[in-house]
Amino acid sequence: MTALELTKHHGLGNDFLVLLDLDDRHRLDAATARALCDRHRGIGADGVMRVTEGTDGADVTMQLRNADGSEAELSGNGLRCLAQAVLDAGVVTGPNLSVATAAGVRRLTVRRSDHDDVVEVSVDMGPAKVGPDQPQATADRGMRTVDMGNPHLVLWGPAFTTEDVLGLGPQIQSQHAGGINVEFVTVGPAPDELTVRIWERGVGETHACGTGACAAAAAAHEWGLVGTGVAVHQPGGTALVELRPDGVTLTGPAQYVARVQIDTEQGV
Amino acid sequence: MTALELTKHHGLGNDFLVLLDLDDRHRLDAATARALCDRHRGIGADGVMRVTEGTDGADVTMQLRNADGSEAELSGNGLRCLAQAVLDAGVVTGPNLSVATAAGVRRLTVRRSDHDDVVEVSVDMGPAKVGPDQPQATADRGMRTVDMGNPHLVLWGPAFTTEDVLGLGPQIQSQHAGGINVEFVTVGPAPDELTVRIWERGVGETHACGTGACAAAAAAHEWGLVGTGVAVHQPGGTALVELRPDGVTLTGPAQYVARVQIDTEQGV
Repeated sequence: MTALELTKHHGLGNDFLVLLDLDDRHRLDAATARALCDRHRGIGADGVMRVTEGTDGADVTMQLRNADGSEAELSGNGLRCLAQAVLDAGVVTGPNLSVATAAGVRRLTVRRSDHDDVVEVSVDMGPAKVGPDQPQATADRGMRTVDMGNPHLVLWGPAFTTEDVLGLGPQIQSQHAGGINVEFVTVGPAPDELTVRIWERGVGETHACGTGACAAAAAAHEWGLVGTGVAVHQPGGTALVELRPDGVTLTGPAQYVARVQIDTEQGV
Repeated sequence: MTALELTKHHGLGNDFLVLLDLDDRHRLDAATARALCDRHRGIGADGVMRVTEGTDGADVTMQLRNADGSEAELSGNGLRCLAQAVLDAGVVTGPNLSVATAAGVRRLTVRRSDHDDVVEVSVDMGPAKVGPDQPQATADRGMRTVDMGNPHLVLWGPAFTTEDVLGLGPQIQSQHAGGINVEFVTVGPAPDELTVRIWERGVGETHACGTGACAAAAAAHEWGLVGTGVAVHQPGGTALVELRPDGVTLTGPAQYVARVQIDTEQGV
């Protein structure tokens, strides 16, 4: 049995396992992702990322699978965790890092913090393609799709309950071929701030979602609810979203949790 | 920063972190247990066990904390996981092992299986002290307390729903000072078999509970529903309970998941 080493990280409570595989020696198939992410019989995580040699001129390439085994194009929180793993392993010296993803190349800037095990990462998330307001919109409610490389539906309303999130989330997701991430957005508590809950496809309700925070900010800006610099409060913590004409930048922490060693006989 | 090594195991989906600390160099306080067991910001587990030098003539001593930080006397699934960790580390050569717990010394027998990472463990769980039938009992329903070193309330009925477990579990628990574990028991599907769901104090609904399986079998035997050798089907899998005049033996698997390395700066 040879041992496989991964690291666990979280960004605002959205947790990921990172497998550095620059020699391309491992497969990350659906069954392996499910086994690793199983919170009782595996290590447990919202998703797992395999990092291989850079393509398309990027420093590294990322493959991401959700806890249910499905492939995902992109995760903002995941990219922050990946940046920390790649920097800690000395693959790049920082502060800049480019990552090839299924949604294109993303550029990251990593800053160390006062805590050895925390970094702040800004991620160029690419453009937010905001769809038109849906017919159901009223003066204090709205619904728009946002394409962040992955698909989102943003619901804006005065207040959302847990029943809304757990009921509407899976219902809306099932109505979209390939699935969709759903954000439940309330304005405030302060100006240029949003309070957001997220139903992530392949995961369920999550503590935080990077592309979801960007989608929520972009849609809210289209509705005239916030400016271009937006603090997005999620159950797991706050991310900062900067909306520019050429793209969206997401800034938030990544925290190192542990090194994990698994015998490869067990599935990877 | 020095690194702290733990191993993760599960018994029927009931997962535990084990910290071998024979030199007594670490503390396992409530905050540390909560941080380690946090499924998004820590490693994630139902509980964590610290193993120190044997007392009371036992090979080793166990301290167990639940995911919420509370101390627990005993866990049958946890003891199986502990046995695997102690055997794998060469602390004992097996097959016999004695563990000092807050509920007294427990004797274990460990058998290796066809899979390197799975062991079968029989645990002498001590006596089951079954209380009298509670007044609510009818021909097809019953309720009894069982003391397995830790407190249980066993509910027997024709069928229990998720609403029953998630509703009655915390309600009953809150009515007992110090908390209580609640087992929802249905007879079958075959003779001498029980189907059980468990609300574990300090955890919530769990995949399996060793002392809960023993309590369910002991209470069901008192009601005349099963014999002395009982297969207890739980959501996470099946455990075998043997009821003898001098005590209860619980047999089931323990599966090794991973080795976990944490920087001690982070709390332990």
